[in-house]
Amino acid sequence: MAERPEYPTALGASSRDRITLLGHDLAEDVMGEVGFGELAFWLATQRRPGPGETRVFEAVLAALADHGFTPTAIVTRLTYLSAPDSVQGALAAGLLGGGSRFLGVTEDTGRFLHAVLDSVDGKPPATDEEWDALALRTVRAEREAKRFVPGLGHHVHKDGDPRTPRLMRIAAEEGLFGPHLSLFAAIGRVHPRVLGKKLPLNGAGVCGAALADLGLPLELLRGFALLARTAGLIGQLAEELRRPVGNEIFLSVDLNNRPVAPDPYTPGDRHG
Amino acid sequence: MAERPEYPTALGASSRDRITLLGHDLAEDVMGEVGFGELAFWLATQRRPGPGETRVFEAVLAALADHGFTPTAIVTRLTYLSAPDSVQGALAAGLLGGGSRFLGVTEDTGRFLHAVLDSVDGKPPATDEEWDALALRTVRAEREAKRFVPGLGHHVHKDGDPRTPRLMRIAAEEGLFGPHLSLFAAIGRVHPRVLGKKLPLNGAGVCGAALADLGLPLELLRGFALLARTAGLIGQLAEELRRPVGNEIFLSVDLNNRPVAPDPYTPGDRHG
Amino acid sequence: MAERPEYPTALGASSRDRITLLGHDLAEDVMGEVGFGELAFWLATQRRPGPGETRVFEAVLAALADHGFTPTAIVTRLTYLSAPDSVQGALAAGLLGGGSRFLGVTEDTGRFLHAVLDSVDGKPPATDEEWDALALRTVRAEREAKRFVPGLGHHVHKDGDPRTPRLMRIAAEEGLFGPHLSLFAAIGRVHPRVLGKKLPLNGAGVCGAALADLGLPLELLRGFALLARTAGLIGQLAEELRRPVGNEIFLSVDLNNRPVAPDPYTPGDRHG
Amino acid sequence: MAERPEYPTALGASSRDRITLLGHDLAEDVMGEVGFGELAFWLATQRRPGPGETRVFEAVLAALADHGFTPTAIVTRLTYLSAPDSVQGALAAGLLGGGSRFLGVTEDTGRFLHAVLDSVDGKPPATDEEWDALALRTVRAEREAKRFVPGLGHHVHKDGDPRTPRLMRIAAEEGLFGPHLSLFAAIGRVHPRVLGKKLPLNGAGVCGAALADLGLPLELLRGFALLARTAGLIGQLAEELRRPVGNEIFLSVDLNNRPVAPDPYTPGDRHG
Repeated sequence: MAERPEYPTALGASSRDRITLLGHDLAEDVMGEVGFGELAFWLATQRRPGPGETRVFEAVLAALADHGFTPTAIVTRLTYLSAPDSVQGALAAGLLGGGSRFLGVTEDTGRFLHAVLDSVDGKPPATDEEWDALALRTVRAEREAKRFVPGLGHHVHKDGDPRTPRLMRIAAEEGLFGPHLSLFAAIGRVHPRVLGKKLPLNGAGVCGAALADLGLPLELLRGFALLARTAGLIGQLAEELRRPVGNEIFLSVDLNNRPVAPDPYTPGDRHG
Repeated sequence: MAERPEYPTALGASSRDRITLLGHDLAEDVMGEVGFGELAFWLATQRRPGPGETRVFEAVLAALADHGFTPTAIVTRLTYLSAPDSVQGALAAGLLGGGSRFLGVTEDTGRFLHAVLDSVDGKPPATDEEWDALALRTVRAEREAKRFVPGLGHHVHKDGDPRTPRLMRIAAEEGLFGPHLSLFAAIGRVHPRVLGKKLPLNGAGVCGAALADLGLPLELLRGFALLARTAGLIGQLAEELRRPVGNEIFLSVDLNNRPVAPDPYTPGDRHG
Repeated sequence: MAERPEYPTALGASSRDRITLLGHDLAEDVMGEVGFGELAFWLATQRRPGPGETRVFEAVLAALADHGFTPTAIVTRLTYLSAPDSVQGALAAGLLGGGSRFLGVTEDTGRFLHAVLDSVDGKPPATDEEWDALALRTVRAEREAKRFVPGLGHHVHKDGDPRTPRLMRIAAEEGLFGPHLSLFAAIGRVHPRVLGKKLPLNGAGVCGAALADLGLPLELLRGFALLARTAGLIGQLAEELRRPVGNEIFLSVDLNNRPVAPDPYTPGDRHG
Repeated sequence: MAERPEYPTALGASSRDRITLLGHDLAEDVMGEVGFGELAFWLATQRRPGPGETRVFEAVLAALADHGFTPTAIVTRLTYLSAPDSVQGALAAGLLGGGSRFLGVTEDTGRFLHAVLDSVDGKPPATDEEWDALALRTVRAEREAKRFVPGLGHHVHKDGDPRTPRLMRIAAEEGLFGPHLSLFAAIGRVHPRVLGKKLPLNGAGVCGAALADLGLPLELLRGFALLARTAGLIGQLAEELRRPVGNEIFLSVDLNNRPVAPDPYTPGDRHG
């Protein structure tokens, strides 16, 4: 470490009379000129997206913003009930549910598709037949390893998730239907041959494929789901302020508690 | 509580083959059609904003997205350093700094201006002279109560915060320069007569005035600052992944620690 | 700021072959010698408590550790359901509900009693009659200001909170029944004369009084409630692992959602 | 889901005149009778530990409570600087750093040792020679798989972490030196034969071994590290209130920022 460390950044900086963001004048060149989805993309990649990229990106954010009374939404409402003085705490608590199970499919799918593409020697598939062949090998390998294919299946939309064809169409319209979406679509076509039943390609998964095709950092795909969800959680709080349900949810649990005797934990599967 | 409670919501809902958001078909009418800033506004108010409202709103979000190495940015980078497996934890930790001191000015200013406007009997001011008179009474009252006027002053931009005139211009262009911005601007004109020196109207404050003029819920103004900051913190994480500084920040503190003797706490100002 | 800043601390420090905590050798003098409640007190005040202080402090922690299916417990269970990979996220989310409403009474009561004691000119009361007189003035002043007295009243334990007499007895046994507890007890005796009905002194309130009598920093009284609750939330997680209810709680809300039409927000109480 | 769900729990419950915790009367049988470490153990396992178990458990908590200016401590101080109104937010933010890298070693070591013990066919080792043989196979297997052995090595205490022999001694004194500690100790003896150099058994690792020998749930070992750290972070906040360094840390970063040009992200390792 140098005697006086330096911390480089291309993000926000300011002097007495000027503020810059990503090397641009914030007031004159960003405010009023750059949409919020566009800016979020730009901040994450340090390159300004084109209009088509922004449209696909914002379609993904719309797909992930709010799914009703998810655990994250319930958590935000209950935390606000307990600590109404801290809006930041209520939002942060909700986001903390954005882990492997609920919001994680987007990232898992993007990373999975990327890993498959990365493992292909030579040039990538060019025709639907070639994509189907790659998809077939992929689904078979997962089946053999007794792993699920991320992005495949949905507990409600069993006949198809309406977000999936829509996002694929938007990406195609903008010329951004890249290899991740191509592989994901092929998985949707071929998996019944291996699994013996037809599962839907879910919306969280197609979002991950689209974000990967946009060239966004794979390590942060979950972050974009969280950005979308932040807008959704603010909507949940706004509704809670006007049509509160948090206290009734709390009471519906607390009043239905059933005291039982302690059940001492014995690590039975434990050595010694 | 009813035997079977019901939880009403106008936000996300889904059936086997359809997903709705705010009463609209998510796939067909929202994805690809609604920008992210527009959607965030819509979720918070349950009404779709017009293009001018969206532009002002997104200008506010741009103004608040990232201010470089703020405590929130440092916190997100250090938390990611400690727990790289949990992007949601790093973002949540950063947002938790969005309280009274750093991100709170936006909300404080919006609430303050609204309270002043709310206290006016009869019709609101119509001319610059009338606004100046109201602003003068307001600044004097705060001065007498030994309180600071929220949104006034900046420790770096002492000669003027470049975001302030820019946001006012955008709001005026869109016909959205309402009473909160009018009062805030008047405070900027008249306060030297009371305080004896000229202070800048800061960017966080003008954002609060603009959000209040957009008719957004005052209780959630801090929430919009947090939404903007979520995009900024993702940018900070993306940069940390490629140009890491978190470990060096940690070491710059840890290696400069100076062990001192304990200093027993005695509540000297305590009774008994 | 100096060219090379220094950060003084009396807490943990380490060299190649030694670790100290609060100026003591961690391995030899703290581990195995100092109980956890004792250590938490010591860390917060930088002075080692005596056995009586530790007993009162640990009694307070026991009183606050777990209250069943509170919002904080539900939040921790739901967050773990969503993100089982992040125990730290589930605990942090639960603690974020420790704000003004649920866990805040302890701090509010301690601060309130201290402010009253601080405002007394001359020497503090010495007899029950003098304490009653002070308490009577205090309750009357709050009544006139239309404020509630913190720590008074409980929605379940309407005839008396069993923790209150017990903690007072423990404090008396240890010779630690100080001015805060004295004033709180007096409020319990005299308030019916002002309010016209008898309310219980609640457990959260008496904990605040006891912590204040122990000389702990008033700004952190909420922190001790959060420490106690951390142990309780680990208990909630341990039970969730063996007798899970999180998913059923989630479904009991989600399956009882009732889609309603959006209700556009109009800041009707808004100027202009 | 039943029409009216029930949520069983053995933790806190209350009726109009009684509060129970783990089936005991909270006021009479827990408060003043049960220490805080003892209670935390009891809550996590639903069985009351004996005095020896409590002593080992509290020694672990002491070992993990505070390590000076760790990222978690810095995060709590910076968050408090930004949002002093929310002590719960500052503590939660600090705990969010308790992930895989900093506080995770305790859990990783406990799980690792348990998995090795679980894989042993027949009866567990009984003599030092048998433990050494098992340890040797274990270290060799990790070496071949190019994985690190959790709990081995320390960047400061290169000649030995003073907490390790001390905790082993305490466990032995209490008759609680079980198979996890035995295996860990054997790894400490034999690893130089495989790795060619002597590394210390670190304090976080020995804590994980001791917690596993106490029969605590492996899934929550990280939780106990977080409980210990909560006490430490309250100590950090208490010190920050009296000897603040948060603002200076913030400035030491912000004033040493170095604006650089954006570096557009190109997923070069990306297909297509």
